[in-house]
Amino acid sequence: MIVNELTKDASLEFLSRKRLGRLACTRNGQPYITPFYFARSGAHIYSFSTIGQKIEWMRLNPLVCVEADEMESAQKWTSVVVLGHYEELPKHPEYEQARELAHSLLEQRSIWWEPAYARTIVKGVERELDPIYFRIRIQTISGRHATL
Amino acid sequence: MIVNELTKDASLEFLSRKRLGRLACTRNGQPYITPFYFARSGAHIYSFSTIGQKIEWMRLNPLVCVEADEMESAQKWTSVVVLGHYEELPKHPEYEQARELAHSLLEQRSIWWEPAYARTIVKGVERELDPIYFRIRIQTISGRHATL
Repeated sequence: MIVNELTKDASLEFLSRKRLGRLACTRNGQPYITPFYFARSGAHIYSFSTIGQKIEWMRLNPLVCVEADEMESAQKWTSVVVLGHYEELPKHPEYEQARELAHSLLEQRSIWWEPAYARTIVKGVERELDPIYFRIRIQTISGRHATL
Repeated sequence: MIVNELTKDASLEFLSRKRLGRLACTRNGQPYITPFYFARSGAHIYSFSTIGQKIEWMRLNPLVCVEADEMESAQKWTSVVVLGHYEELPKHPEYEQARELAHSLLEQRSIWWEPAYARTIVKGVERELDPIYFRIRIQTISGRHATL
């Protein structure tokens, strides 16, 4: 197996092609991972979520990690890791442009589905319809590609 | 979309079926995710790695997170999250049994491939052949399953 580092540009390009990744946040030294859908644009990764543990933890500590990969086998894979900074995009005029960009990017990549999103029942309770938009500013990005 | 919690038993059973997951560790409030192959047995998740950032961070802070999922679509998915404790299995007589169990489990699940593992070249340098075995003690496990 030969493992090569991806260049920064190749890592960013890989991220642009991916929709599904994993996001980790931390509280008191304890990491927590969730799968999430995202769209990368420039130096940011855009996504949305309902309120929950992930959002609460990221509000307390904005240092996060995003990982996206293609695992064909244990010997053939690509993995890109971003260390980044969480930034919420609340419903304030100053964030309106960023919120619109987020919605547009997520919609283009079919990450946003009005009907599916509209009604979601968690533990028998219908969740709030209003999602929380956020973006992650990419601080460092690295990638590795393995082949036989 | 309806999201249901999995029971502890269903979450453990899901983990038993999976080979590929993501592992997060933390240093100074900064999480870091890597994909990894594992085998669950009882209250532990077994794996191995060569020395690197992941191992160094877990030695400093043994609080880790393991996530495994099946993402069919944004509306149909299962995700199981473990909060756990990293434990290295060094070449000491007291760990010999655990190391043998780890090797046996990983071999059974074809996670251990002698020929593939034997020669791995990272950045043009052949890496050490001797892997570091470790296990993660499952402290809490939770799972969610979403369907339309």
